Amino acid sequence: MASSVAGPEIERLVQLLARLPGLGPRSARRAALHLIRRRDTLLAPLAEAMRVAEESILTCSVCGNVDSRDPCTICADERRDRATIVVVETVGDLWALERAGAVRAQYHVLGGVLSPLDGVGPDDLNLTGLLGRVAGGGVSEVILAVNATVEGQTTAHYIIDLLAGQQVKVTRLAHGVPVGGELDYLDEGTLSAAMRQRTPL
Amino acid sequence: MASSVAGPEIERLVQLLARLPGLGPRSARRAALHLIRRRDTLLAPLAEAMRVAEESILTCSVCGNVDSRDPCTICADERRDRATIVVVETVGDLWALERAGAVRAQYHVLGGVLSPLDGVGPDDLNLTGLLGRVAGGGVSEVILAVNATVEGQTTAHYIIDLLAGQQVKVTRLAHGVPVGGELDYLDEGTLSAAMRQRTPL
Repeated sequence: MASSVAGPEIERLVQLLARLPGLGPRSARRAALHLIRRRDTLLAPLAEAMRVAEESILTCSVCGNVDSRDPCTICADERRDRATIVVVETVGDLWALERAGAVRAQYHVLGGVLSPLDGVGPDDLNLTGLLGRVAGGGVSEVILAVNATVEGQTTAHYIIDLLAGQQVKVTRLAHGVPVGGELDYLDEGTLSAAMRQRTPL
Repeated sequence: MASSVAGPEIERLVQLLARLPGLGPRSARRAALHLIRRRDTLLAPLAEAMRVAEESILTCSVCGNVDSRDPCTICADERRDRATIVVVETVGDLWALERAGAVRAQYHVLGGVLSPLDGVGPDDLNLTGLLGRVAGGGVSEVILAVNATVEGQTTAHYIIDLLAGQQVKVTRLAHGVPVGGELDYLDEGTLSAAMRQRTPL
C-alpha cells in the first residue's frame, strides 16, 4: 500500500476512509493527512462524533428513519400532518424532501426498492409496517415519493396493489422528476414542484 | 441544516465530514448515511481507527514525517541510503515518491513552501533541522523534490543558498514534472523518470 511507510495505524485509517462514497484511494490519503494535520480541531472531534453516532443512532420503529430517538423526531412532531404518509426509498430521500420543505407530513422509509435482479423482494422492504400504519386508521393519503426509475415505479405499483383494500388515497409525485433521475440529486425547486403537482392514481 | 430532522448527533457527524477534502455538504450527508447503514462494519472501525491515530501519530523529530514511532519507519530503516536526503514540501509528497518507488533514501519534510503573500517565511519551515542534518556530516546529496510552482522553486533557491557552505551536492528533480503541477497528482512513471534525470545545480 501507498502509505505503508507511515505505519499500520495510518494505513488502516486510509483503507477505511477509502470505503466512504466519493473518496477513492488517493483522496482517502489526502483526507487522512488532512485529519492528522488537524488532530485537535478535526480528527479528535470526528472520532468522537462517530463514536456518539455509533452508540446513539436508532432506526425508528414507526417509519424506518434514523435518529437518536425512537419514535424519531419527525414521527414525534405533533405539528405535522398525521393523515399523510410520504413513502420514500431511503433516508437520503427523506432528507432531500425535508431540505426542500416540500411537505410537513409523516414519512415511511422502505429501505430500498423491489429489484428481482438484485434479489430484493417485498419481504426485504419495510412494507408490512406501511400496511399496518394505514390499516391502523387516521391516514387519508399515501404519497409515493419513490425514484422515477424502473424499480421505483415497480415498487409504487406493488404498494398500490398492497393498499387497494384500504380507505386511503394513493398519490405519486408529479412528473417534473426527470425520468431515470434520483431524488437526492434534484434541486429544491424541482422537488417542491413535483410535490405540489402530485397526481391521484 | 439539511439533516436537522435527524437529531444533533447526525447533524454534527455531517458537519465534520463536510470538512474533509473532497467532500462537500451533499457528499458528507451521503457519507454519513453510508456510515450509519454500516455501523458495525465501517462506522465503529473508522471511529476506532481515528481514535488510535489521534493517540499514536507522532511527527518524526528527524525528518518531519508522520508515523506512530519517532524516529519514523523511514529514518529507522537501516537498508536505506543514509547519504541522500530528499527534501519534500509535505508528507503527501513523501507518500507519492514512496508509491513510485523512486528512491530509497532519507526524507526531509519542510511542512510547506516559502510564500510571502501567505505570510510563510523561512522560520515557518523545517529548515534548521535540514541544515543540522547536513552539517552533522554523512550526507553527500540533497535532492530538492519540491513542487514545480513559483513558491516551490523560490524555496529551492533559498535552500541552495542555505547549504552553500556545506560539502554536499544539491540536485533537483528533472524537468518531466509538468510546470505548475504538483507531485501528489502525478503518475508513478513520471515521478520515477524525474527522479532518474535529476540535474546538479
